[in-house]
Amino acid sequence: MTSRSLFLLPGDGIGPEAMAEVHKVIAVMNEKESAGFSTDEGLVGGCAYDAHGQAISDADMDKAMAADAVLFGAVGGPKWDAVPYEVRPEAGLLRLRKDMELFANLRPAICYPALANSSSLKQNIVEGLDILIVRELTGGVYFGEPKEIIDLGNGQKRGIDTQVYDTYEIERISAVAFELARTRRNEVCSMEKRNVMKSGVLWNEVVTATHKARFSDVKLSHMLADAGGMQLVRWPKQFDVIVTDNLFGDMLSDIAAMLTGSLGMLPSASLGAPDPKTGKRKALYEPVHGSAPDIAGQGIANPIAMIASFAMCLRYSFNMVAEADRLEAAIATVLDKGLRTGDIMSDGCQQITTAEMGDAIVAAY
Amino acid sequence: MTSRSLFLLPGDGIGPEAMAEVHKVIAVMNEKESAGFSTDEGLVGGCAYDAHGQAISDADMDKAMAADAVLFGAVGGPKWDAVPYEVRPEAGLLRLRKDMELFANLRPAICYPALANSSSLKQNIVEGLDILIVRELTGGVYFGEPKEIIDLGNGQKRGIDTQVYDTYEIERISAVAFELARTRRNEVCSMEKRNVMKSGVLWNEVVTATHKARFSDVKLSHMLADAGGMQLVRWPKQFDVIVTDNLFGDMLSDIAAMLTGSLGMLPSASLGAPDPKTGKRKALYEPVHGSAPDIAGQGIANPIAMIASFAMCLRYSFNMVAEADRLEAAIATVLDKGLRTGDIMSDGCQQITTAEMGDAIVAAY
Ligand SMILES: CC(C)[C@H](C(=O)O)[C@@H](O)C(=O)O
Ligand SMILES: CC(C)[C@H](C(=O)O)[C@@H](O)C(=O)O
Repeated sequence: MTSRSLFLLPGDGIGPEAMAEVHKVIAVMNEKESAGFSTDEGLVGGCAYDAHGQAISDADMDKAMAADAVLFGAVGGPKWDAVPYEVRPEAGLLRLRKDMELFANLRPAICYPALANSSSLKQNIVEGLDILIVRELTGGVYFGEPKEIIDLGNGQKRGIDTQVYDTYEIERISAVAFELARTRRNEVCSMEKRNVMKSGVLWNEVVTATHKARFSDVKLSHMLADAGGMQLVRWPKQFDVIVTDNLFGDMLSDIAAMLTGSLGMLPSASLGAPDPKTGKRKALYEPVHGSAPDIAGQGIANPIAMIASFAMCLRYSFNMVAEADRLEAAIATVLDKGLRTGDIMSDGCQQITTAEMGDAIVAAY
Repeated sequence: MTSRSLFLLPGDGIGPEAMAEVHKVIAVMNEKESAGFSTDEGLVGGCAYDAHGQAISDADMDKAMAADAVLFGAVGGPKWDAVPYEVRPEAGLLRLRKDMELFANLRPAICYPALANSSSLKQNIVEGLDILIVRELTGGVYFGEPKEIIDLGNGQKRGIDTQVYDTYEIERISAVAFELARTRRNEVCSMEKRNVMKSGVLWNEVVTATHKARFSDVKLSHMLADAGGMQLVRWPKQFDVIVTDNLFGDMLSDIAAMLTGSLGMLPSASLGAPDPKTGKRKALYEPVHGSAPDIAGQGIANPIAMIASFAMCLRYSFNMVAEADRLEAAIATVLDKGLRTGDIMSDGCQQITTAEMGDAIVAAY
């Protein structure tokens, strides 16, 4: 029997509630389809800090490195607002990304038909929207050195962060974007601020060269990141795949997610390079939404983004394409039936709990 | 008679066409109100590069430094895409900001009632929207050193930009935001990425301290910049004044502008510190839109943002509050009459040219 190892890091806030629903999906797939998933669970974020003073322990890092795939919930909350910078909840996530070398962050922004109406944008602007943001995840201002606060005396301090990109980093992320575009509408738009940033000049140059050398069949365009943000709001359907750096990707993918009106529904995948021998790639899957501490523990959170992240895991880590399709179809079915958690509730629908949503999706699978 | 010196830098693309309409407003104010405006004109951006190989000449920089206020059109266009980084069109604007020490960029995002319908957002989300983004403009990743591309050999290059903020820079921009909030709805939201950036940690700390020491009557909140972008799209009316750094301000103010559906209408002001002796502050006023090379020279561009920038100039540089109010009212009147340039055209309205729009506003003034 196949054996597939999953390492689960539910984290803080609504993370554990959402992850509990993924457990149900895993159980059903093991039972009915002999999928052979084995699971182990660890701590990340504020709960890890509470347990052992670190945002993720070395032991859990080892397990994450060894697993076939990591499922990640969410981290953070007001409880840990004052913990030291180095051990703040986000540090756990950033360490996972960096140590596992998960340089490619895939963030689909899809508008579920049943929810087109719940966007703050006009329905015709977002209906049928399906874009993919490919964000560089292990470089840029997130990790560049120096990154420090210096005391200058006289009551003055200096905060410094460094944006750094090397050619190979830009090359590999743009290759991922071009490859994915080939499976979609074959268009990539690259976004940077080359009019202000030297890293943007290099970004533009390397994306252009990679395109020319290896992907000239894909349609490539370039946009300044600020103009890109505007265009996302104005007419998002003009885009297929957007490739951009870590910080712009953070901003732009969140905006794209919000456009869809489906924030509680959107998954993401963070992938490493395929191992040259086995072809396997390290991977972490997480919902785009955060830990939502204000509603945590009440059983009302929307588990769909977490379950959809598991669907991405089936697709990208285990090549279980049929199962991924079925799971995504199950989500759509449940929404079409009018079942809703509170965050996506609207007139004429039926409001259900986190657990009921998980059950309904499992039943529709 | 009062004498008020304006230095005009129309720049590239639609800049000159838009500036021509401001000339009409100035003429009428001089004639009918003895406003005493004197004007001189210079080159900036691509046209300056064409004329003398620099994005702005030292002579024009001197004039900008000496004038009571600078009116700036727009810079850039495909013609100059390949000019060296140091003399690219944007370098002229960046030099003006830096040498004039225009650290406070005020970007109102207002939804003109007559245009509420033309936003990509639902009408109830943007109707009546009135937020002010206060963007730091002379620091951060725009100007920090090192800023370079290094050749690493082996076909590898490294692009580096540096985000730097000192305490005093954060203090003075947050003071501007708090002061402006007092003249509005008394609320400031500060945005950074303190969960990832050390400059964000310092930003948060200094804004909080400035608030406590001098502005505790103003309501202050903090938001991560990515969440802030989302909230702008979800429910922008939750904000009054937003204060943020140079790069986040670039992204967020463009998004806010696009929300309003009034991009061709939005002005901005870039202000220096008041001179300790005279109380005067250096200032530059520019429309939020760019040079729009695709429609330049056709006489169809919307001059309203440029004229509204002049209204801000009346308000902030010359304390001509009544005149600014009248000019803004004239713009609203013309829109209420259904007169529109092509970019904001809609059913039942009358499409007019750039010059006709300028004439109509002057007539309504
Ligand atoms: C939690 C935080 C560190 C993270 C980021 O900034 O990358 C989050 O906003 C995201 O987009 O995954
Ligand atoms: C033209 C460019 C340098 C500029 C910026 O990035 O600041 C523009 O986008 C703006 O917002 O004024």
